[in-house]
Amino acid sequence: MSTNAPVMILVAPQMGENIGAAARAMWNFGLDRMRVVAPRDGWPNARAAALASGAGRVLDEAHLFGDTCAAVADLDYVFATTARQRGLTKSIVTPERAMEQTRALIGTGQKVGILFGAERAGLENVDIARANAIISVPVNPAFPSLNLAQCVLLTSYEWQRQTVQVAPETVELVKTRFANGLEREKLGDHIEQRLEDAGFFFPPDKGAHMKQSLRNMWGRLPLTFADVQILHGMMRQFARWKDDVSGPSKPE
Amino acid sequence: MSTNAPVMILVAPQMGENIGAAARAMWNFGLDRMRVVAPRDGWPNARAAALASGAGRVLDEAHLFGDTCAAVADLDYVFATTARQRGLTKSIVTPERAMEQTRALIGTGQKVGILFGAERAGLENVDIARANAIISVPVNPAFPSLNLAQCVLLTSYEWQRQTVQVAPETVELVKTRFANGLEREKLGDHIEQRLEDAGFFFPPDKGAHMKQSLRNMWGRLPLTFADVQILHGMMRQFARWKDDVSGPSKPE
Repeated sequence: MSTNAPVMILVAPQMGENIGAAARAMWNFGLDRMRVVAPRDGWPNARAAALASGAGRVLDEAHLFGDTCAAVADLDYVFATTARQRGLTKSIVTPERAMEQTRALIGTGQKVGILFGAERAGLENVDIARANAIISVPVNPAFPSLNLAQCVLLTSYEWQRQTVQVAPETVELVKTRFANGLEREKLGDHIEQRLEDAGFFFPPDKGAHMKQSLRNMWGRLPLTFADVQILHGMMRQFARWKDDVSGPSKPE
Repeated sequence: MSTNAPVMILVAPQMGENIGAAARAMWNFGLDRMRVVAPRDGWPNARAAALASGAGRVLDEAHLFGDTCAAVADLDYVFATTARQRGLTKSIVTPERAMEQTRALIGTGQKVGILFGAERAGLENVDIARANAIISVPVNPAFPSLNLAQCVLLTSYEWQRQTVQVAPETVELVKTRFANGLEREKLGDHIEQRLEDAGFFFPPDKGAHMKQSLRNMWGRLPLTFADVQILHGMMRQFARWKDDVSGPSKPE
């Protein structure tokens, strides 16, 4: 089990299916430390295990507690998730801010847990009072209806987002590479010559500007070597087609 | 319908329940523009409507298309969501980066759509080839099993996160206010005097440092006026308890 990650604590969950879905949501983002407090249908729960397929290890290694007090006893900082105001004076943060704080706390060796309430009613105030701060997902006020697994999913996603360095943008290159400067230049020359032959640059006084715009386009587009080959082939084929007046021509 | 938000396009969805869950996920974060391409069980779908309860308007206003080509015809920029590499040369971005780009594109008056594939197989390559870029949620490589509604949820969440300004941290204050400087000072005085009476500051040469630590604590804690009243009451009660040797005393 990863000790450098927050513990997800399900308080009085009802449906086994939702416990299983919560386990899947956690494991989707690499979290595997679950605690379960007084589940309605006992523990272990066969329906939870059935729905957790693939994330069963999260349930296998989950710890069972009789009450919330025992479940948070060893934790240095506890967040409570809730959708509505509770009449308690307490900090309210977004999942994003909460996971920023969690990363910082864990970085100093502290243990952090997040309380999730039962499906319908959520956490009771007596449990929220034990938390250091409240996490509230900023949902549409007209439709604030996240379920248990969705709340676990968004929190786990934010944990992952705060901790895993993801390249901002990658390109999947398949059996090819980007065209280099010379290849792009030669492509530009070829296309320009074919278009010149075809009378594309008309009227002549606009020609220079049109050519520059085209060169800029070949520079701007992220063309691969394979793209360049295809464009060369297209240009050659137009020329063949023009030369062959007897019918559709075929590529060599 | 909000014209300044992305369109969520479900391609060949199978289970009505998942269409309904996707509608709920969208509306949780204020998105209401859904397009449905060739749903397996026809349209409208009673099971989708049943599960969408509360977000039924998203389905009522959804547009039906026969193929993906028609569904994206009026869109200026299209993202395709996929969990695995597809053998296509195309930019891959996180949901966060995609929604940043979407906000920027919509800000210049462009229309943006996001393609979501069917439950098991996801999008077909022919549909992904039509997209300008790919969104890939950076899930746990050992368990990359997001379902349709979860993928819609995370994307909608990111859209909301990019567009709605949320205060980084708020405090819900219930029928009270934070204690002001004078109130905190008087509380410090009171507690210090009671502790002095009780012989708390021992040995005497450590007393000054202990007092400073306590003053610092009252300064650091975000005490409300109500908290201060409670602490004053506690101090008074200890004194009463000490004075009354005949049994447990009662508050006045």
